[in-house]
Amino acid sequence: MAGPSDLQAPSFADVKAAAQRLADMAVVTPLLESSALNKRIGGRILIKPENLQRTGSFKFRGAYNKLSQLPEAARHAGVAAYSSGNHAQGVAAAAALLGMPATIVMPADAPRIKIENTRGYGAEVVLYDRYHEVRDEVAAKIVAEGGATLVRPYDDPDIIAGQGTCGLEIAQQAEALGAKLDAVLVCCGGGGLVSGTALALAELSPSTAVYSVEPKGFDDTARSLAAGERLRNDPAARSICDALLAPTPGELTFALNKQLLAGGLTVSDEEAAAAMAYAFRELKLVIEPGGAVALAALLAGRIEAAGKVVALTLSGGNVDAESYCEILTARS
Amino acid sequence: MAGPSDLQAPSFADVKAAAQRLADMAVVTPLLESSALNKRIGGRILIKPENLQRTGSFKFRGAYNKLSQLPEAARHAGVAAYSSGNHAQGVAAAAALLGMPATIVMPADAPRIKIENTRGYGAEVVLYDRYHEVRDEVAAKIVAEGGATLVRPYDDPDIIAGQGTCGLEIAQQAEALGAKLDAVLVCCGGGGLVSGTALALAELSPSTAVYSVEPKGFDDTARSLAAGERLRNDPAARSICDALLAPTPGELTFALNKQLLAGGLTVSDEEAAAAMAYAFRELKLVIEPGGAVALAALLAGRIEAAGKVVALTLSGGNVDAESYCEILTARS
Repeated sequence: MAGPSDLQAPSFADVKAAAQRLADMAVVTPLLESSALNKRIGGRILIKPENLQRTGSFKFRGAYNKLSQLPEAARHAGVAAYSSGNHAQGVAAAAALLGMPATIVMPADAPRIKIENTRGYGAEVVLYDRYHEVRDEVAAKIVAEGGATLVRPYDDPDIIAGQGTCGLEIAQQAEALGAKLDAVLVCCGGGGLVSGTALALAELSPSTAVYSVEPKGFDDTARSLAAGERLRNDPAARSICDALLAPTPGELTFALNKQLLAGGLTVSDEEAAAAMAYAFRELKLVIEPGGAVALAALLAGRIEAAGKVVALTLSGGNVDAESYCEILTARS
Repeated sequence: MAGPSDLQAPSFADVKAAAQRLADMAVVTPLLESSALNKRIGGRILIKPENLQRTGSFKFRGAYNKLSQLPEAARHAGVAAYSSGNHAQGVAAAAALLGMPATIVMPADAPRIKIENTRGYGAEVVLYDRYHEVRDEVAAKIVAEGGATLVRPYDDPDIIAGQGTCGLEIAQQAEALGAKLDAVLVCCGGGGLVSGTALALAELSPSTAVYSVEPKGFDDTARSLAAGERLRNDPAARSICDALLAPTPGELTFALNKQLLAGGLTVSDEEAAAAMAYAFRELKLVIEPGGAVALAALLAGRIEAAGKVVALTLSGGNVDAESYCEILTARS
């Protein structure tokens, strides 16, 4: 199978084309504003709630953009993907809509809701051990055996362009509100959402500073941006942000991020959990740990936002009630 | 003080005027759609999430519409209100924005988040015993002593017109989506939100059937609609829907509802709790018990919605983490 090295990074035109493919398929999530949050920060905060997206995270955008472009001949053999759960659901839902079979390799310790929902969209789920098996190899075996097309979670131009529609909407919706964006904070695992978002903003709002936000121990993008080259995380690192545990930045995503991002921010698990509790109490939105890191960076003061207009993504809301309530009740 | 009998029911023009007063003050909450919910019901369901409204419920709409019209001479003495918590927050937030003092009479067993938030907006909170004191009398004493203007929770034309802006937005947003509404389900306590919503729909979408939804034991509007006269609830009734425990329909609200509603639906506490858990899992929205009854009626099949376009309000999201998690974990 072709590696990402063979692939070209997408352009803004690819993001616009993705938006056309996604029309009537993905939710145009609103850009929300909370007077409580504005008051706390002393700025104007615009919230992009991708937890309200189809499948409960932004991942449907990239998955549908990719799958809807597969040639007719490839559709019958279907698709395969490896994912901690949100890409899994995105690929499974897109495959179901397009009538393709899907096989998804997921860590056995993924949140139950993610595994159940992926199966619920009709995909076959193959579980693996996150800490002792290499998911790429498990997926490669499935691809070799059945001829399915592998759908990478972020290192693919069609995936990046699809996620970029989230940034396109942020730019358009902010403009409709008459808001000139000083900064955008984007949750970051492999970097698909932030690179796509940065592509859209570079074109539509070039003075806006775009930041990736990662959990501590998985701050490979922040460190790689500072070093100018792709660095890896310590394999012993752990985080509650199950959606953001990529080992290293993607090749394509990092090529874009290196060029387009203002920097990378990092938050602790405790800060992510506190942001989830804040979103419960003040925003009335259910956010998963990985979906809360951009809000966490804002609440923890990682950037100066007073007097500024700052947009942030809440990238997903797929969390089990048990984990969610453990986090809420410890902070109420 | 003047009783509701002296007052005229509002008209559609009053709802439109309220919308102008609320511009830039209230949130124009989005009209959301969930493919998971559409699939489950087999219809097109449009969700009006008033939990995303300023103060976490629709109540800010009516409160701001009322307070912003108080004559200059009345502003100094401020306002008083009795409320189980959402009207309290609405009045307190509106008073703070308009620079008026506010005193709010609240049941001592109201959710902690509602009491804390009301105080957080700067209001003075007076607690009373829901089952042994009459809140109207406690509030009347405050009004008599300090000259504050009493802001009734629903039986007031300015309050009803303000809540009606929620219905106005539903009608306008549904039209923008090209959706012709067959029915609208509205959470109902004293009937302010449903009567205001019905006023807006009667004008903008007269073929739409508007239903009130109440919890069992507090189905005074449903029974009153059937009987053609205002009936009271059994004082011994209890429900988890703390926002919807009005003893009897309002005079003004019932005059409108009798004329405009297609009927009244009722759900059990268990159905309301199941709808909260559904909203957590599938919609990623935090809903309080009283805010979940319209969704509960839909999920429980109280109206035939297959093949139909149905809008529903999620009227509030002010719930303590502890109560919320008790409900979620029992159903996950």
